Amino acid sequence: MTSTIDPKSIGKPSRPRRHVRTLTGYLPEVDESGKEKWPRGEEKVWKEAMRNLDNDVPSIERSVVNHVQTSLARQAYNLDDTGAYQAAALSVRDNLILNWNETQLLYTKKSPKRAYYLSLEFLMGRTLDNALLNLGLKDQYNESVKHLGFSMEDILEQERDAALGNGGLGRLAACYLDSSASQELPVWGYGLRYQYGIFQQLISPEGQQLEAPDPWLQNQNPWELPRLDVTYEIRFYGNAERLQDGSGRAAWHGGQEVLAVAYDVMIPGCYTKNTNNLRLWESKPKRGFDLNSFNAGDYERAVESSNSAAAITSVLYPNDHTTFGKELRLKQQYFWTAASLQDILRRFKNTGKTITDFPDFVSIQLNDTHPTLAIPELMRILIDEEEVQWDMAWHIVTRTFFYTNHTVLPEALEKWPVPLMEHLLPRHMQIIYDINMIFLQAVEKKYPGDRDRLGRMSLIEEGFPKQVRMAFLACIGSRKVNGVAELHSELVRTTILKDFVEFEGISKFGNVTNGITPRRWLDQCNPELSALISKTLKLEKSVWLKDLYKLKDLLPYADDAEFRKQWVAVKQHNKERLARHVKTTLGFEVNTNAMFDVQIKRLHEYKRQNLNIFGVIHRYLTIKNMAPEERKKLNPRVVFFAGKAAPGYWIAKLTIRLIVNVARVINADPDTKDYLSLYFLPDYSVSLAEVLIPASDISQHISTAGTEASGTSNMKFCLNGGLLVGTVDGANIEIAEEVGETNVFFFGHLAPAVEELRYQHVYHPVPIEEKCPALANVLNQVSSGVFGDGGVYEPLLNTIRQGDYYLLSDDFDSYIAALDMVDKAYLDKTEWVKKSIRTTANMGKFSSDRAINEYAESYWNLESVKVPN
Amino acid sequence: MTSTIDPKSIGKPSRPRRHVRTLTGYLPEVDESGKEKWPRGEEKVWKEAMRNLDNDVPSIERSVVNHVQTSLARQAYNLDDTGAYQAAALSVRDNLILNWNETQLLYTKKSPKRAYYLSLEFLMGRTLDNALLNLGLKDQYNESVKHLGFSMEDILEQERDAALGNGGLGRLAACYLDSSASQELPVWGYGLRYQYGIFQQLISPEGQQLEAPDPWLQNQNPWELPRLDVTYEIRFYGNAERLQDGSGRAAWHGGQEVLAVAYDVMIPGCYTKNTNNLRLWESKPKRGFDLNSFNAGDYERAVESSNSAAAITSVLYPNDHTTFGKELRLKQQYFWTAASLQDILRRFKNTGKTITDFPDFVSIQLNDTHPTLAIPELMRILIDEEEVQWDMAWHIVTRTFFYTNHTVLPEALEKWPVPLMEHLLPRHMQIIYDINMIFLQAVEKKYPGDRDRLGRMSLIEEGFPKQVRMAFLACIGSRKVNGVAELHSELVRTTILKDFVEFEGISKFGNVTNGITPRRWLDQCNPELSALISKTLKLEKSVWLKDLYKLKDLLPYADDAEFRKQWVAVKQHNKERLARHVKTTLGFEVNTNAMFDVQIKRLHEYKRQNLNIFGVIHRYLTIKNMAPEERKKLNPRVVFFAGKAAPGYWIAKLTIRLIVNVARVINADPDTKDYLSLYFLPDYSVSLAEVLIPASDISQHISTAGTEASGTSNMKFCLNGGLLVGTVDGANIEIAEEVGETNVFFFGHLAPAVEELRYQHVYHPVPIEEKCPALANVLNQVSSGVFGDGGVYEPLLNTIRQGDYYLLSDDFDSYIAALDMVDKAYLDKTEWVKKSIRTTANMGKFSSDRAINEYAESYWNLESVKVPN
Ligand SMILES: Cc1ncc(COP(=O)(O)O)c(C=O)c1O
Ligand SMILES: Cc1ncc(COP(=O)(O)O)c(C=O)c1O
Repeated sequence: MTSTIDPKSIGKPSRPRRHVRTLTGYLPEVDESGKEKWPRGEEKVWKEAMRNLDNDVPSIERSVVNHVQTSLARQAYNLDDTGAYQAAALSVRDNLILNWNETQLLYTKKSPKRAYYLSLEFLMGRTLDNALLNLGLKDQYNESVKHLGFSMEDILEQERDAALGNGGLGRLAACYLDSSASQELPVWGYGLRYQYGIFQQLISPEGQQLEAPDPWLQNQNPWELPRLDVTYEIRFYGNAERLQDGSGRAAWHGGQEVLAVAYDVMIPGCYTKNTNNLRLWESKPKRGFDLNSFNAGDYERAVESSNSAAAITSVLYPNDHTTFGKELRLKQQYFWTAASLQDILRRFKNTGKTITDFPDFVSIQLNDTHPTLAIPELMRILIDEEEVQWDMAWHIVTRTFFYTNHTVLPEALEKWPVPLMEHLLPRHMQIIYDINMIFLQAVEKKYPGDRDRLGRMSLIEEGFPKQVRMAFLACIGSRKVNGVAELHSELVRTTILKDFVEFEGISKFGNVTNGITPRRWLDQCNPELSALISKTLKLEKSVWLKDLYKLKDLLPYADDAEFRKQWVAVKQHNKERLARHVKTTLGFEVNTNAMFDVQIKRLHEYKRQNLNIFGVIHRYLTIKNMAPEERKKLNPRVVFFAGKAAPGYWIAKLTIRLIVNVARVINADPDTKDYLSLYFLPDYSVSLAEVLIPASDISQHISTAGTEASGTSNMKFCLNGGLLVGTVDGANIEIAEEVGETNVFFFGHLAPAVEELRYQHVYHPVPIEEKCPALANVLNQVSSGVFGDGGVYEPLLNTIRQGDYYLLSDDFDSYIAALDMVDKAYLDKTEWVKKSIRTTANMGKFSSDRAINEYAESYWNLESVKVPN
Repeated sequence: MTSTIDPKSIGKPSRPRRHVRTLTGYLPEVDESGKEKWPRGEEKVWKEAMRNLDNDVPSIERSVVNHVQTSLARQAYNLDDTGAYQAAALSVRDNLILNWNETQLLYTKKSPKRAYYLSLEFLMGRTLDNALLNLGLKDQYNESVKHLGFSMEDILEQERDAALGNGGLGRLAACYLDSSASQELPVWGYGLRYQYGIFQQLISPEGQQLEAPDPWLQNQNPWELPRLDVTYEIRFYGNAERLQDGSGRAAWHGGQEVLAVAYDVMIPGCYTKNTNNLRLWESKPKRGFDLNSFNAGDYERAVESSNSAAAITSVLYPNDHTTFGKELRLKQQYFWTAASLQDILRRFKNTGKTITDFPDFVSIQLNDTHPTLAIPELMRILIDEEEVQWDMAWHIVTRTFFYTNHTVLPEALEKWPVPLMEHLLPRHMQIIYDINMIFLQAVEKKYPGDRDRLGRMSLIEEGFPKQVRMAFLACIGSRKVNGVAELHSELVRTTILKDFVEFEGISKFGNVTNGITPRRWLDQCNPELSALISKTLKLEKSVWLKDLYKLKDLLPYADDAEFRKQWVAVKQHNKERLARHVKTTLGFEVNTNAMFDVQIKRLHEYKRQNLNIFGVIHRYLTIKNMAPEERKKLNPRVVFFAGKAAPGYWIAKLTIRLIVNVARVINADPDTKDYLSLYFLPDYSVSLAEVLIPASDISQHISTAGTEASGTSNMKFCLNGGLLVGTVDGANIEIAEEVGETNVFFFGHLAPAVEELRYQHVYHPVPIEEKCPALANVLNQVSSGVFGDGGVYEPLLNTIRQGDYYLLSDDFDSYIAALDMVDKAYLDKTEWVKKSIRTTANMGKFSSDRAINEYAESYWNLESVKVPN
């Protein structure tokens, strides 16, 4: 006699497990009098044993050394900077966790409305410095590690960026998390724990971008808390059968089941105990290793299911502003939204409220269309599992979700083939069809017989194959839709979602101009400037960093020569810091007396790095043609580029190659090199941005008008007193509104002109030699091989010669003129510094605190819940 | 201009890393006066910050609660037993690490000769209880967790066994590690960190064994220290080209390269600070994800190399005493030996000694032939990398290695096909051929013209394909060879290695009878008995547990009635504990007034679980035939079986099925169930052994004479006062020598008779009805379907009817007679208890401390290095 098998126990230990999971949401019971009962053991023993934050130097030293001794199992004898980083990080982590625990317990107790930010990307960068600053413990840790024989600067350099994002969209998500915590709002982020983040960019001797993996988890990651027992099952494939009981429900079964495992990343607020949570999901096989195949001798089969499950969160798709169309990407999206929704629902249900109250307690922000499957998934759960009627389910869904559009570029609008969707998510495809039918019936009712309109507005695009239009699904499934800058929101309303605005009314379509966190993007990356501001405003930084409009009070100091001197000194130090960085990492000597001109962002034709490099070539040719004495009057300039190209984006990679080879030529030209030099800094990252941004005199944000939804690096440069050279696009416009048009260098055609110009390019083309001789000359020089084998660049040059979709030939002359204005303005140093000061002083609006508060108030209806100090 | 690619940097962070790895072996520098210099920072700050062992209750409480707060990020509100286990484990881990650090630093300072124990299996079981006992902190932790609201017993039950082994061989390795640390010997173990340990055994309703994966690392493992920066590169496949420079060297390049990453498991000694290391290797891809394939859209390819690397340490091969012949298994063996040797060499070189001194500072024990590749691998390193001449290299190798043979069963002797070896390890195959040639030339010199002998002794067995005989390679490459019990060592010398004894001389071939650690197998699993012994001997257990011959002083107490009463009470409590365990896990009521008769070990024909189950059936039929009054005089008996069958071992799995179905019938038979019942406990493991062994009255070790090399569970039962029923085989013989023949129940033919009997079975078969009517009757009952569908068992029954290789028909009658003797002896309770006491008292020899000291003295020439208290 023996026990027989319970299939649920497969892969689990055979001994019984009475198991309370590490879920949040447990509360003390109360006795009759309403007093909380201590849940376990002797309250006194617990309380005496509990630790508090380490915030004096000896406690910090003890904590760091203890982590060296135990967590690292090392000693003073074999501790290097990496080890010291790890020990310091673990010590800070402990502090964060204490605050995290307190915050989560309070949220549970109060059960306020919560918001969830669903983003497929979180470009967090490094954490240690940020955590130290937000905790207000930087000085104490500085001193502690110094006593232990290390320098904080070296230690900070050991940290590897968490780079789970491509660019602006992911970095925005990271800034919003920082602001949510700083504003004490009960917000959690949900994303994926990719095994490999955005690739490491390497540059071959020819100037070709090469991509290497980013195994960022290779060394343990102190900033996450594995929650190995917080898991959910996620199904793919299989069959969906509608039940024949008139309930509208369906049963979805079969297919592949995988597990989502939670990893929590602590998000400390600035000078507050509030510490929010970013929950990242990792995929793993439900059953583990398939021992039966193994026994049958088929080892490959035995690991297969485990691999295909693990593959889901294996890698971040390295594409920005283009869709990829791969099944695995769709799997990522569903895996992530399904796990997040299950988790959100569980937490909601713990509060004991009824499901119809869901939208009163939960708002879910969809960061772009990536999480749009959350809409049919919540419908599925409500209908098939919670047994809610369709209408009520739709009512709940459309009051829960909020959708942020990030682009109007056609190539970036997500669509998924119906056959793929039917195969991978059969039940969701049914639901999407049902949503579409009911929706189109309503449209037809309002516009009887308008078949064009029905075709335009259908969630399903006709064609071979048919495709699901995710932006439309996100739009009709959400309570509100917003763009990310005034111009962009207007474009959303008047172009891609025009029909929906007409049908659903304008009030659903708003704008929240993006923001950036001044903690990372000023205090952390530019500590000298931060100190100067605090000193000048006579304010603790904890005050103005959380109320950035306070910067306005710097305005009068623009006229204070002593202040200007200090301002200039800070900029100069930052330029020297950048030069040191370039020297140690790349070995080049950068001239810190030159103007620093920076363009750093993803490589994309719409962002027009091409325009910039052609401008550099033009400048080079111009200087080359000058007499030596004439040159001496020039304002020396160093141009920096950095940015990654999507690995399959050939033209963007050619641009990098051109930049690298132009640099090789002009930096070596004795006639010009004192006046113009050029660097491509490989492997752009948040940490690199933190060194570049504070050092810039000007930065370029020169997208074709109407293409850049907002941009956020423009804000970062201006906040650090760099002046903006840009087109009238995205947030540039609002920056100019704030800082004054005289303090920015605008050029180029405006958005409304773009369509007409493109039409002319195609139907009435004018040869470039005629239209823009200066640009034509530049192209010819490249073609002729001045910067290496000319033939290589033909495909890139042809994008301008033919079609010129991004209007380089239309904007080149005014671009050059704008750069000339910059040169002129720079000659008047005093005026320049005033511009710089006024720019910073007027950037208050662009704090992500302002943005997140707009979401909280006008979208989510969320109130802050402060953890008492 | 930009930096260009350094291929070494691929996948690494781009910022510079000045990196001292977490390797052991760093020592303080000394100043001119010879005083040690503090290596980093302010000595005073470091020393004040450093922590010591937590050994009082308040410190332990603080440590446990702090781990709850930070490491688990939990609170009293959501802490369950699993969480409490984790927190307690982390707290104990901290203590272990402090001792580990101190030990390793001392070993480095003293740089004594070290020994390395290479074993492909380490069957560690649970760690927490063992660590608490070895640290002497069990009482303090008991009290602490009680104050915090938990019971230690429940907490201990939360731990999952570390089951990286099949059976005896792996458990022996674990016992030897415990003894090495307890004896303060500088010994490290080396093994593999399998992602999946030995499968979980489940029993289907038909009684079929099913195998489920053992994802033991699913929840974090507090007992290991990841050493993510201690890595070595391991090559497979590729080409080996002999250099044409007359040096004898070769270059091996190309093929697949994977990384070995170290994980350290702390091995605390008993009542000493010495804490040794077990280093387990995990495989991972050298380059990570292949982004180029990914970009080309070939996701499958992109993960492929990473999978094939990770696969190497994915799973333990679940075979015991049979070879498997799979390429992946050979990869495991090479991966592990190559990583271990690189690590050993690095540590040796740190001491600054020259390579010819290697054998004076390093001994490497090969646990069975699994690590035999270490011999050609060390040759390869010495010749190709260290540029040592062949003769010197061979001299070094053959003074470094020691080989333990574990079996003379032909099916268990490892052989690898030459073509596979040539493909996977081309350079090693060359070296093996060279070793063989030189060796056979020497043999030929001693025995000119003896071609038979050359064929018998060649490392290469002729055939299709040719095969490498690993035991021979291990033998000639080692300084000494040993078997694991007197009889077995004699069989090694006279059968499989006979020719080698003749050629190399008898003195190379020794014996070290296996041992078991009395810490786990008495103090931990039988705390009441341990306490009774300490009280009776008036000795701290720290004394007698490390000098087990002290048990002899119990002998006089056999005649002390009061002591006997206590002895009986302990056994009774252990039986009740087992009954409770069966009740909670399986739901059955076990009669604790019956004699407990236990056979627990791997299922194998040579171990003859069949003999036992046939005996049970025979007993059942006998009782069934008795008159009710007659039955009342019987000694009630409960028979326990447990053990796993290799998944592909059909006959062994049929045996399990038979046991399960016999149990079903007899446990339900109202005529007999009060006198005989039978349980098959699924999923045998170290933890289950710890509950079963102390509860046994008798245990069965009934292998065909000459087949069980030693056995170790026999020792464990006897140490816990259970009496032995067994054949004259393995360590049974030596146990009988120690405890006296009157205290064991021997039966069956002796080893020298076996060959002749087998010959007779084949050439002069006697029908079983004639030879052994009792057994024939049993087989017929099974055949006829008394225990379920008879047809199923025919293949099993036929192994006895035809050939009967394991001699069941020869031994059955004497087996039954022995069991009758047991019954008779049991009737005299007083005498029985005396036997029990005398058995325990005489088990001193079987401490693994004795065994490990024999290795240290007579094999490795190793001295202890005590960490001062
Ligand atoms: C690493 C990184 N990538 C991309 C961006 C977004 O840049 P932009 O707004 O110029 O597209 C930022 C913003 O600073 C960043 O730090
Ligand atoms: C789990 C486990 N398997 C196997 C063995 C070895 O048993 P035997 O010596 O009976 O083969 C032991 C020893 O106690 C064990 O604990």
